[in-house]
Amino acid sequence: MTTYTGDQLDGLVAVLHVIRAGEARTRPELTRATGLGRTVVTQRLGQLLAAGLVEEGALGRSTGGRAPRELRFRAEAGSVLAAELGATAITAGLTDLNGELLAERTEAWDVSLGAEATLGRLEALFDELVDDTLPVWGVGVGLPGPVEFRTGRPVSPPIMPGWDGYPVRDRLTARYRAPAWVDNEVNLMALGELRAGAGRSERDLIYLKMGSGIGAGLVSGGRLHRGAQGCAGDLGHVAVLTGEAPVTCRCGNLNCLEALAGGIALARDGTEAARANRSPFLAGRLTSGRPLTARDVADAAEHGDPVAVELLTRAGRLVGDTLATLVSMFNPAHVVVGGGVAESGDQLLAALRESVYRRSLPLATRELRITRSSLSHRAGLVGAAHMVTDELFSRARLGGWITEGTPATA
Amino acid sequence: MTTYTGDQLDGLVAVLHVIRAGEARTRPELTRATGLGRTVVTQRLGQLLAAGLVEEGALGRSTGGRAPRELRFRAEAGSVLAAELGATAITAGLTDLNGELLAERTEAWDVSLGAEATLGRLEALFDELVDDTLPVWGVGVGLPGPVEFRTGRPVSPPIMPGWDGYPVRDRLTARYRAPAWVDNEVNLMALGELRAGAGRSERDLIYLKMGSGIGAGLVSGGRLHRGAQGCAGDLGHVAVLTGEAPVTCRCGNLNCLEALAGGIALARDGTEAARANRSPFLAGRLTSGRPLTARDVADAAEHGDPVAVELLTRAGRLVGDTLATLVSMFNPAHVVVGGGVAESGDQLLAALRESVYRRSLPLATRELRITRSSLSHRAGLVGAAHMVTDELFSRARLGGWITEGTPATA
Repeated sequence: MTTYTGDQLDGLVAVLHVIRAGEARTRPELTRATGLGRTVVTQRLGQLLAAGLVEEGALGRSTGGRAPRELRFRAEAGSVLAAELGATAITAGLTDLNGELLAERTEAWDVSLGAEATLGRLEALFDELVDDTLPVWGVGVGLPGPVEFRTGRPVSPPIMPGWDGYPVRDRLTARYRAPAWVDNEVNLMALGELRAGAGRSERDLIYLKMGSGIGAGLVSGGRLHRGAQGCAGDLGHVAVLTGEAPVTCRCGNLNCLEALAGGIALARDGTEAARANRSPFLAGRLTSGRPLTARDVADAAEHGDPVAVELLTRAGRLVGDTLATLVSMFNPAHVVVGGGVAESGDQLLAALRESVYRRSLPLATRELRITRSSLSHRAGLVGAAHMVTDELFSRARLGGWITEGTPATA
Repeated sequence: MTTYTGDQLDGLVAVLHVIRAGEARTRPELTRATGLGRTVVTQRLGQLLAAGLVEEGALGRSTGGRAPRELRFRAEAGSVLAAELGATAITAGLTDLNGELLAERTEAWDVSLGAEATLGRLEALFDELVDDTLPVWGVGVGLPGPVEFRTGRPVSPPIMPGWDGYPVRDRLTARYRAPAWVDNEVNLMALGELRAGAGRSERDLIYLKMGSGIGAGLVSGGRLHRGAQGCAGDLGHVAVLTGEAPVTCRCGNLNCLEALAGGIALARDGTEAARANRSPFLAGRLTSGRPLTARDVADAAEHGDPVAVELLTRAGRLVGDTLATLVSMFNPAHVVVGGGVAESGDQLLAALRESVYRRSLPLATRELRITRSSLSHRAGLVGAAHMVTDELFSRARLGGWITEGTPATA
């Protein structure tokens, strides 16, 4: 078996990167874009062609001499299984080697049913998605709690009883005979927006998720900042002072931000308002017998219901006040706001923006952009797929694909 | 002029790095430590020897065959000018190419006298330090305010009137005909502790500075996190709620953390206690006519003065409460506490630790270490020198030293 030197690996990574990014389609363009010598480019390209990662296609435009053949990355050479396990749903997808979604399955699921049951259900969904003509090159999964990235095991996840230390990564690697990576779902949403969404090409970014829970993913210098225990960005469980009677969070502590301003909190406060007849709109919804959700509160606000508007404004303000501290200390260029609650009308985002701009340090907000997620509910899934392709075509792995063969050529 | 390919540069960086770090002293060790082929190692080593960056010394121990010659990095091939401009002092140093201090000058100075006067004085100190036999390879300076790292210009620094946008980097580059880099002083303290102090080999670290002002430097994945405007970690100007009458900060805002718990605040509150005869120790100091400083409050606490102990405990608690939020969100492995006030006895650090452990998320403090700075008042100076050597021997610059010659060989 050939092993590659550091020099040769860097050449491979560089050549593959510019072809994948569409920055070079011909050999002369490759030489220019990588800064490598012609001989080196020819050798590395030969290896990528032999491994089936790159192919030569139609004749390109001639610039005088022989017309060069166009080079393209074979994103269809393999597939990636990607999934996002939220608190209340499983989303599973099959993507190509560029992280483009080919097929998707979503269903309601309670993650607190534990690791065995949940991963069993996830694997059933993955099995439906696997395409026998497309070998699986890698698996990526996001979980709704802190994850030790190196081992792919959850670390004391507050809303996932029975998952602490479970070898999620090892189980998936064994089952699909492909490398697997596991991370916190909010980190993957941040990565999705960074690679393919509203945060494309940013260096310092915060992704704020406002769903049933609240969390943030931090990007420092173009890379995820995960923190020593994988819990960086855990905004939702910071204690907030309100001067009102304290509220118990689902994690067991008092007055966590998400217990006051998350989707569960909005549903609870909306239900209370409906029962007390303070909101005719919500009271009407409640008569259907279905429990109210944050979506109902958002609908009420869109119909001009003053209590619902007040609830969303208060939630935006509370989250904005805590986010302001994070903005002051982390100094991002861009905050991308996503999650079901964030997508519910403009009142909440307006209140959040106002709090951040008023309470952060002036320098930290001078050029700060606060925008909605562009990938919406797919951010985590897209991020999970990009986590896998980032790792597959990294310096550390590419040599393996070339020397030992890819799943397509082996 | 030869230009180097990416492959060749990586080889150079790798070979030089393991020699500088003392990880390899012979050619066989170099081959093992870098993973590069023998031919490549020989070529790259030849270039480093020719450039005067590496030399072959005494015969090493033979392991059977011909005894190999020991390789060493020629840290004495050139020098670095490093400086830290604090609010009230200039510290300038000359170091070798490993960042080891060879000589140092410190004097009191008021940075609010402006850029021209301050840099003029700094240059006078640098000129005293320059050794004609040691060419200056680079210059590194830390400033007490936010800096746009790319351009080396201060950005709206709150306590440096007249410095906004001043081309500090360009001025020093022109004057010393050597590349210069400028950063916030607290970032450089963090870098100093990371490279040569209490935080050596950490990946995620917070350096907390408690001097006349308060600030933090953040390290993410082994690299400084500077933020989009260079103001990441600006803990000192986060507004704090106390329930007492608000205090105006030197930056103009109300109730900034450093206006309540920084060195200036301690001196102010200590003076008040002395005048009100609540502290016999401080009242005694005040009779000398010299204005009290935080140092006097620390001395009083060491003599058991209850008011001084209470002032230091309160400062530690206030800083700890704000730091707890940063710890929860950034999830460092280690907090290194430095600065003159932090070095003043144990009460303050004990109160700070207690607040952080009580108020941060449990997972974020599970393995968190909070220790004192080991470089003490030299952290910023050492960090400034390491900023320069990191940049000089980076992938981007090393090719230049090899092809165009170093200041020693040109």
